Amino acid sequence: MSASLAADHPLVDGRTGGSALVTALRGTRGPTTPVWFMRQAGRSLPEYRRVREGTSMLQACLDPGLAAEITVQPVRRHGVDAGIFFSDIVVPLRLAGVGVELDPGPVMDQPYRTPDDVARLVEHTLTRESLEPIREAVRRSVAELGGTPLIGFAGAPFTLAAYLAEGRGSRDHLAARRLMHADPATWGRLVGWAADVTGAFLAAQVEAGASAVQLFDSWVGSLSLADYRAHVAPASARALAGVAALGVPVIHFGTGTAHLLGAMRDVLADAGVAQPAIGVDYRTPLDEAAAIVGPVPLQGNIDPALLGAPWGVLEAHVRDVLRRGRAAPAHIVNLGHGVPPDADPDVLTRLVDLVRAGEPAA
Amino acid sequence: MSASLAADHPLVDGRTGGSALVTALRGTRGPTTPVWFMRQAGRSLPEYRRVREGTSMLQACLDPGLAAEITVQPVRRHGVDAGIFFSDIVVPLRLAGVGVELDPGPVMDQPYRTPDDVARLVEHTLTRESLEPIREAVRRSVAELGGTPLIGFAGAPFTLAAYLAEGRGSRDHLAARRLMHADPATWGRLVGWAADVTGAFLAAQVEAGASAVQLFDSWVGSLSLADYRAHVAPASARALAGVAALGVPVIHFGTGTAHLLGAMRDVLADAGVAQPAIGVDYRTPLDEAAAIVGPVPLQGNIDPALLGAPWGVLEAHVRDVLRRGRAAPAHIVNLGHGVPPDADPDVLTRLVDLVRAGEPAA
Repeated sequence: MSASLAADHPLVDGRTGGSALVTALRGTRGPTTPVWFMRQAGRSLPEYRRVREGTSMLQACLDPGLAAEITVQPVRRHGVDAGIFFSDIVVPLRLAGVGVELDPGPVMDQPYRTPDDVARLVEHTLTRESLEPIREAVRRSVAELGGTPLIGFAGAPFTLAAYLAEGRGSRDHLAARRLMHADPATWGRLVGWAADVTGAFLAAQVEAGASAVQLFDSWVGSLSLADYRAHVAPASARALAGVAALGVPVIHFGTGTAHLLGAMRDVLADAGVAQPAIGVDYRTPLDEAAAIVGPVPLQGNIDPALLGAPWGVLEAHVRDVLRRGRAAPAHIVNLGHGVPPDADPDVLTRLVDLVRAGEPAA
Repeated sequence: MSASLAADHPLVDGRTGGSALVTALRGTRGPTTPVWFMRQAGRSLPEYRRVREGTSMLQACLDPGLAAEITVQPVRRHGVDAGIFFSDIVVPLRLAGVGVELDPGPVMDQPYRTPDDVARLVEHTLTRESLEPIREAVRRSVAELGGTPLIGFAGAPFTLAAYLAEGRGSRDHLAARRLMHADPATWGRLVGWAADVTGAFLAAQVEAGASAVQLFDSWVGSLSLADYRAHVAPASARALAGVAALGVPVIHFGTGTAHLLGAMRDVLADAGVAQPAIGVDYRTPLDEAAAIVGPVPLQGNIDPALLGAPWGVLEAHVRDVLRRGRAAPAHIVNLGHGVPPDADPDVLTRLVDLVRAGEPAA
């Protein structure tokens, strides 16, 4: 991995450096507030359902042409300010040769929780070659997106390790949380391996042209602050150190994280991220989040549940989100969780227009 | 419903009034710190698996002899300071004639989210007769428990309404959260009906001899504080008003509630509960919870993930929980979530002994 971006990287050659998203991630308020939606590339779009016909989720993620097409679809339709790279958190595991399927959530070939399990797991590595389909999909996405930045995507080490330790999804992530206390050395190897896989997966996307990355720690809200700091934060920082060295902005997001927001910001600092941003779920108002994390750009946090409410109710909520977002140095509008599969895409487009029109004087 | 307890109620006749649990719930520290475990009556016990053979969960809940036996089993085995009434949050729905099965989570015959759905739903009521199997199971449990208090059980209105609106379990409870914004009047009828059902279910248990009740709001952590206060808290208070009038202590518990603990305490006050207690999940240290809720007895919060850790690790954690619990006027030791099905019952018994032996001088 090189420690600087290539001359034709969109951030270097100026294609995306002046975009609303990158401007906000640099901590500056531009003329418009950027907006994109987590899981915007997905089931809510009829054109997505059409191109996915007859193709499994993992096949789609690993087909560069299809992944690029799906990545670009919501930018084309909604005019959002960023593409999010279409992938799944288990894709780097699959590329590393680990047995995993989606049904529809991740199902591992076995749980990885004993010293022997983990010793076998860490023999798998992500090679440059294995990541080539990802780089190719990113190159194609970036070429199509032009001046609209692409955000790279990866699941955070804890979330990966939670699936690995449990062998599948769970509500409480007991296997992972048990392992970190019962056998901290084995846990450290497991989550450290997940960090290296995540780091390599993100770096490949950045090298191929992503202008920023988002680290999704979907399940981190299941941890106490003490467990997060002791057993997870160092791995998240390790995952991000590589992309931090490349100099791209990093957005860090999880759900149910009101008690972890400060520690998640510290992870970005520990990783040496020069342009950090915190994604906030729908539960924590942005002005409260700003009081916790300090002068860091915030992303969020329209409640996805309100996408199905009458427009007037949703509009009032969006205006409230924009108003509270003023407490941060910069604001990237997003949902406070992913787009629900049954969301009406026209409502998302209308939301983009509302945000772009700006906040009326209060 | 009478507004005072019968003369032969265990709290009145003195059977449980001096127990460690009731003493703590009255806000006083006794010679020992009481301890019980959420979901102690359940799959972790071989004797439970034995009596459940060939019987569905709902059948077991509705069979007074079986429900009483299961309620008493963990008290017999572990010597805990309370029985928790063996039931399921959907039992009052079933008794009210609503179509619901467990598979293994609740599955409704239909989602209840339109004005017409909810209008049909609210025609179902819990009658005195329909609650008789519950009263009988409680009477039998109480007779067997003697001086050990029985804690009554119910799911809170939001958690019930989340299942009703969605039609089954879900991760984000989008249908319920959407309804409260999209159609607040219909939501109000739905959650208000759930409150009345919960209130009647709890009152029946208290009348039949429960010395305290716990209201479980399993999914409430999915709400923002603003939504909780506006759309849920009044229903929870309405559910508790009846048992508050009977004068029994009330424990209120949910998971992922760090941001809601103060509002949950306010619900107890609004309901007129004279002896309120707050259950705290494993994520929030008890000293931090005490700083949030003020001088209220706290229940919790051993991390269930640590039940599988080496004894020394678990013991140190329990001592830390006891130490932090000193920040509250009184402390009822419990887990910070239910007993996992694969927990070793001997570890639970050893935990009871550890708590009962008291904290060594620091």
